[in-house]
Amino acid sequence: MKNILLLGAGRSSDVLIDYLLKLCRSEGYQLTVADAVKQTAHAKIIANGGEHTAAQAIALDGNNQEQCRSVVQNADVVISLLPPAAHLTVAQACVEFGKPLLTASYVSPEMRALHKDAEEKGVLLLNELGFDPGIDHMSAMQIIDRLHAEDAVITAFRSYAGGLVAPEYDNNPWHYKFTWNPRNVVLAGKGTAKYMINGQMKYVPYHRLFSHTEDVFVEGLGDYEGYPNRDSVIYRELYGLRQIPTILRGTLRRKGFCAAWDTFVQLGMTDDEIIIDNSANMTYREFTNMFLQYSRTYLVEEKLAMMMNVPRKSELIDKIEWLGLFGHHKIGLERATPAQILQHLLEQKWKLEEGDRDMVILQHRFEYHKAEGNFELVSDLIVYGNDNRHTAMAKTVGLPLGIGAKLLLTNQIQLTGVQIPVKEEIYKPILAELAELGIVFRERIRSVE
Amino acid sequence: MKNILLLGAGRSSDVLIDYLLKLCRSEGYQLTVADAVKQTAHAKIIANGGEHTAAQAIALDGNNQEQCRSVVQNADVVISLLPPAAHLTVAQACVEFGKPLLTASYVSPEMRALHKDAEEKGVLLLNELGFDPGIDHMSAMQIIDRLHAEDAVITAFRSYAGGLVAPEYDNNPWHYKFTWNPRNVVLAGKGTAKYMINGQMKYVPYHRLFSHTEDVFVEGLGDYEGYPNRDSVIYRELYGLRQIPTILRGTLRRKGFCAAWDTFVQLGMTDDEIIIDNSANMTYREFTNMFLQYSRTYLVEEKLAMMMNVPRKSELIDKIEWLGLFGHHKIGLERATPAQILQHLLEQKWKLEEGDRDMVILQHRFEYHKAEGNFELVSDLIVYGNDNRHTAMAKTVGLPLGIGAKLLLTNQIQLTGVQIPVKEEIYKPILAELAELGIVFRERIRSVE
Repeated sequence: MKNILLLGAGRSSDVLIDYLLKLCRSEGYQLTVADAVKQTAHAKIIANGGEHTAAQAIALDGNNQEQCRSVVQNADVVISLLPPAAHLTVAQACVEFGKPLLTASYVSPEMRALHKDAEEKGVLLLNELGFDPGIDHMSAMQIIDRLHAEDAVITAFRSYAGGLVAPEYDNNPWHYKFTWNPRNVVLAGKGTAKYMINGQMKYVPYHRLFSHTEDVFVEGLGDYEGYPNRDSVIYRELYGLRQIPTILRGTLRRKGFCAAWDTFVQLGMTDDEIIIDNSANMTYREFTNMFLQYSRTYLVEEKLAMMMNVPRKSELIDKIEWLGLFGHHKIGLERATPAQILQHLLEQKWKLEEGDRDMVILQHRFEYHKAEGNFELVSDLIVYGNDNRHTAMAKTVGLPLGIGAKLLLTNQIQLTGVQIPVKEEIYKPILAELAELGIVFRERIRSVE
Repeated sequence: MKNILLLGAGRSSDVLIDYLLKLCRSEGYQLTVADAVKQTAHAKIIANGGEHTAAQAIALDGNNQEQCRSVVQNADVVISLLPPAAHLTVAQACVEFGKPLLTASYVSPEMRALHKDAEEKGVLLLNELGFDPGIDHMSAMQIIDRLHAEDAVITAFRSYAGGLVAPEYDNNPWHYKFTWNPRNVVLAGKGTAKYMINGQMKYVPYHRLFSHTEDVFVEGLGDYEGYPNRDSVIYRELYGLRQIPTILRGTLRRKGFCAAWDTFVQLGMTDDEIIIDNSANMTYREFTNMFLQYSRTYLVEEKLAMMMNVPRKSELIDKIEWLGLFGHHKIGLERATPAQILQHLLEQKWKLEEGDRDMVILQHRFEYHKAEGNFELVSDLIVYGNDNRHTAMAKTVGLPLGIGAKLLLTNQIQLTGVQIPVKEEIYKPILAELAELGIVFRERIRSVE
């Protein structure tokens, strides 16, 4: 009997566990769900109808190397939903015992360093197999390979992805709710983003990132905007687009979000290093004022409007006001960083309520020319969540991992080493099954001057 | 015979070595100058007239713990001019063998952790005994103690210090030349600054630091400006000003410098983490353009002016142009960070030429009230360098260390543990001897409404 080991039963594991339990029932596999708290793993199995299946929950300390080794040794395929920093111990055990590993995380330098060992051992460490990164790579590569087969020369590639609240449940001025790890949202974009436009390399430091947006129109949904995401330029190599003059990957938000979020960056409220003294007893108004110049004349609202160069009565200031950052509520969080205080507030205001549904959007936009002329191809994916647990994010992260596990257990992937899903061998069967499960791209091509 | 050990014979050690050699001659002490390169230490001794004195040069690897221990063991007082990160090994050896240590660096958390051990051992680790930090602490404390003795209530304290080029040699549009470690200047202000004004705590993130300046007028010299320096609020405690509503320590620059330097911060050019591909063959114009939005319409100069919200013909753009950042010269530095590239350029443009003289300025401004009314006290220190080696910076950093060593060798300091020079026992004799050596503050007090 083959064993699937899933590490981490966090809040986006439901769809994956549901998929794996069905797979176990039909194929006679065994599933082990490991979490720091055994009860969490057990509850997820029960919640997804796994009571009478061959599924077991175990407690696992991701930092305990010996324990990791012993559970990995008994598995046939390992899926890690642990935080990225915890993947390495697992990956080392996978290489040692020759067990394939799947993650939805970006390849870290430490992970990349295992490539040679993994190849020699004939084992696959397949990362970036979630939504973004994951489905974005696979769907982009399917189009790129097809265009190249048609002798097209691709001159520009832009790709934007975002996890958002579905329009019917979008009832706040930010048009945003947390559908994913709030901490990652608060700290998003730290570092310097890098992309290429018309052959020119562009670097965008964090403090200009959220004012450095492009408009993105999504048919049927309307106006969005995107900001550049990390290093887009490495994908010239990874996507086989070595000569492409324009390449940009970005994060998608509802129009107006980035200008307002920029307020936090400009103020310094996303700083996660300094500790604010006496933060528990401070009011949110005092917190906001701490980042604004002293004045005897102007109110906090007025100083912020001046700093951001907008009128006092403006959408931007309204958004900040709606969050309560001018209010007299106490923060109630002791010795916190500004980022922790901001996250604490946003978690109350941007909560996905019971009954709310989320949505993910992915849009690729290619420009290319062929013998017949110049073309633009737009490929959109829009997925809605079913409910609070079976979110669009949980589907689009979990299903590629589940399908990947199935392919590995049936020996349909021969690739070894540290990989991301850019090869046809991987993306073709996964995208095909995703389509069967309702995760379908729509594509339109128009001729341009 | 008593032994003085000086670690590090870098470019600002001349005045200190000169002082110590004279001390050795008059008191019969022995000086050992240790440097990574023995020849450097030897050359400094010769250059300062130490050929026929009891001074020796040795080679020392600051990271070699055993070697540090053996040289410290033979010393009666140790002065470290090593980079701050190298002080710890030396400090540990000083505690072990009960030898006092003097440095001109900020107390690091690791240094602070040695306090208890040093106290138990009865040994003094005296840090921040240079110019800034150093003379600033001592001169501020002398005034604060005096005002407190006069029953004054101090309501505001601002202190600005800067190392600059002397006015007669100030012949570039930035009104700045490197008189100190260029790397520290390029990376200055990273992190979040913290100060207090009228009882309100203020945080200034790095990307707003250089637009967050105060005007500072220096009598006889003219208009300067200052930006907040690190954490000013801890000095409420350290200076015995626990209730003071306004406290700010800052760095002084010639007026207009900060707005222009802000350009580099806004662009992202002070980033010291990302590596620029192919930087050697890139021109400075391409480098600048990399940080600016793509445009078919506007020139690099125009895009920069728009980003900084100044006219194309403006002092700010002239300053950038003067540096050559719009020019077609190749950078010639391989795989460098933006900060390294910027430093490389500035070192050519802001070089202190043969014959140039530098200057340091320190200004304290106190507001206080007494029974008789409200007062403002301004205390200025202006020191000029003699030449390229005996700079104002080398004097004001080196002499306090030299005098401190003399006081320790004659048992005039009883303090132990990790300290900064805020106690009368230290500042009184040091400021008195500095005054004899021409380092004199001028003070004026005026009555205010």
